Amino acid sequence: MREELPREFALIARHFRPLAGPGALDLEDDAAVLAPPTGRELVLAADAMVEGVHFLPGEAADLVGRKLLRVNLSDLAAMGATPLSYLMTLAAPADTPDTWFADFAAGLGQDQARYGIGLLGGDTTSTPGPLCLSLTILGHVAPGAAIRRRGARPGDAIWVTGTIGDGVLGLYALQGRLDDPSGVLAARYRLPEPRLGLNLAGIASAAMDISDGLVQEVQHLCRAGGLGAQIDAQAVPLSEAARAAGPQYLAACLSGGDDYELVMAVPPEREPALLAAGGAAGIALTRIGRFVPGADVSVRDAQGSPVELAVAGWSHFR
Amino acid sequence: MREELPREFALIARHFRPLAGPGALDLEDDAAVLAPPTGRELVLAADAMVEGVHFLPGEAADLVGRKLLRVNLSDLAAMGATPLSYLMTLAAPADTPDTWFADFAAGLGQDQARYGIGLLGGDTTSTPGPLCLSLTILGHVAPGAAIRRRGARPGDAIWVTGTIGDGVLGLYALQGRLDDPSGVLAARYRLPEPRLGLNLAGIASAAMDISDGLVQEVQHLCRAGGLGAQIDAQAVPLSEAARAAGPQYLAACLSGGDDYELVMAVPPEREPALLAAGGAAGIALTRIGRFVPGADVSVRDAQGSPVELAVAGWSHFR
Repeated sequence: MREELPREFALIARHFRPLAGPGALDLEDDAAVLAPPTGRELVLAADAMVEGVHFLPGEAADLVGRKLLRVNLSDLAAMGATPLSYLMTLAAPADTPDTWFADFAAGLGQDQARYGIGLLGGDTTSTPGPLCLSLTILGHVAPGAAIRRRGARPGDAIWVTGTIGDGVLGLYALQGRLDDPSGVLAARYRLPEPRLGLNLAGIASAAMDISDGLVQEVQHLCRAGGLGAQIDAQAVPLSEAARAAGPQYLAACLSGGDDYELVMAVPPEREPALLAAGGAAGIALTRIGRFVPGADVSVRDAQGSPVELAVAGWSHFR
Repeated sequence: MREELPREFALIARHFRPLAGPGALDLEDDAAVLAPPTGRELVLAADAMVEGVHFLPGEAADLVGRKLLRVNLSDLAAMGATPLSYLMTLAAPADTPDTWFADFAAGLGQDQARYGIGLLGGDTTSTPGPLCLSLTILGHVAPGAAIRRRGARPGDAIWVTGTIGDGVLGLYALQGRLDDPSGVLAARYRLPEPRLGLNLAGIASAAMDISDGLVQEVQHLCRAGGLGAQIDAQAVPLSEAARAAGPQYLAACLSGGDDYELVMAVPPEREPALLAAGGAAGIALTRIGRFVPGADVSVRDAQGSPVELAVAGWSHFR
């Protein structure tokens, strides 16, 4: 009995083995073996993506792969870590065509090259339900240098990278609920840009990425640090495309998910260093408010009146 | 605005935070920070489990959690690694009750204590489909000591731990296709026993765990090592319960999945050391055949006639 490789293993050999990085043992073993980088701490995160929840049914497979990698890389960016490698599990309908796997792997390969990482291992399985993907990312930092959610102090300013709200407006556009003539909003939803390369060590007193809505993430920083915050809605950086959508979408921008920008606490005296780091990385930075004593997170408009939000952000379970 | 925690984060805080191990930062951050064990290599694997594929719909949540951990621990056992910690992602229907999460976490907690590991991080998300779980396990080995699938030589004997086929017969029993008066078969399907603690370094020339069927796994060892194998069906260790099912289930035992036993290549001169290691770990070991030159994997009965199998093992994609 010398059978042809069953399709599961043929798929892995054909599409995923070429993605194998150092330590992956060509994906031929039960596990990967990795010599951790000397004198560094490992930084590890895992995020899942489900078809119909995190991406639209029928989304291009290469973009699914790249988004999966990028939402995880964004967690490394939030901690100030350098990407190293990743493991991935993929549950797909049993009749998923080879072309889907080929495109998915091509997307992963493209972003592996972009971010200098390799595939370490994983699992490919069938499911009677929608595509369900999970990725565990590994990175590294100098010992003690990881930036935490806790650490913000009253008086620290709140800073964000890039522009806020494009992700959720992009989803609206793809759902036909919003015009997106430039396609910029949809592109931002489909392919976020992890803010790696912004050297925040010794600058940010706390940081996290914005995956579930700006205001909710600021609430997380406040809970972790035991303090409150004031957000100046007027100061929140919106893209041209988001501004063009109109002021009625401001609340969505503040509480919608899928930004994958960073939100940080930065003491005022470190602002020059922050701006220099942003300049060096080519990443736009905007101050949008400050942390204050207490526990409340308030959002104010240009007149100082509270901006009411139905929800602060996204929760998968209500 | 100082909201109650959205349910997603309340679930994590209530059920998963108590499972957080060293480096997990109380699951409060975007990622975990782990100082890797000094002078060791890391061993990493990731396996997914989907409701209706890897466990039956409605399975007790604590057993789902424990099986998820154990199938991954089994990959560490196959490499000869010592468990360290894990990350997990969980996609569950949005209406999954709190009691399910509580039971699931209780099962994880029970096996965390048993295997001396902690939760490092992960993600909890909703899905319109069945439960879809993914776990990445981390372990460690002495540098160069990981046992690979490649390495078997002609003349090495094929050894397995425990008994073979109980997992697939247990599935049949739970599906009502087979009597299981003792409940032993169903128990083995629902809760496998990873064969950790068997010190195979310097003994096995190759090893892997049996998750997708004994014969298919031997084929994997043969492909990796560039050789063939002869399996003596008569020698394959069956439990009393599997024997009671009758000889018509032998083929299922040889090619069914979910054993989570180990299959190893061991040179004859190392058999005493192997048996001593088995004795020390309290793990039964049986020689079931040998590796031979060539590329064929043959299975013979007591009369030396070929045992025909419809398939060698499980593939998720056909």
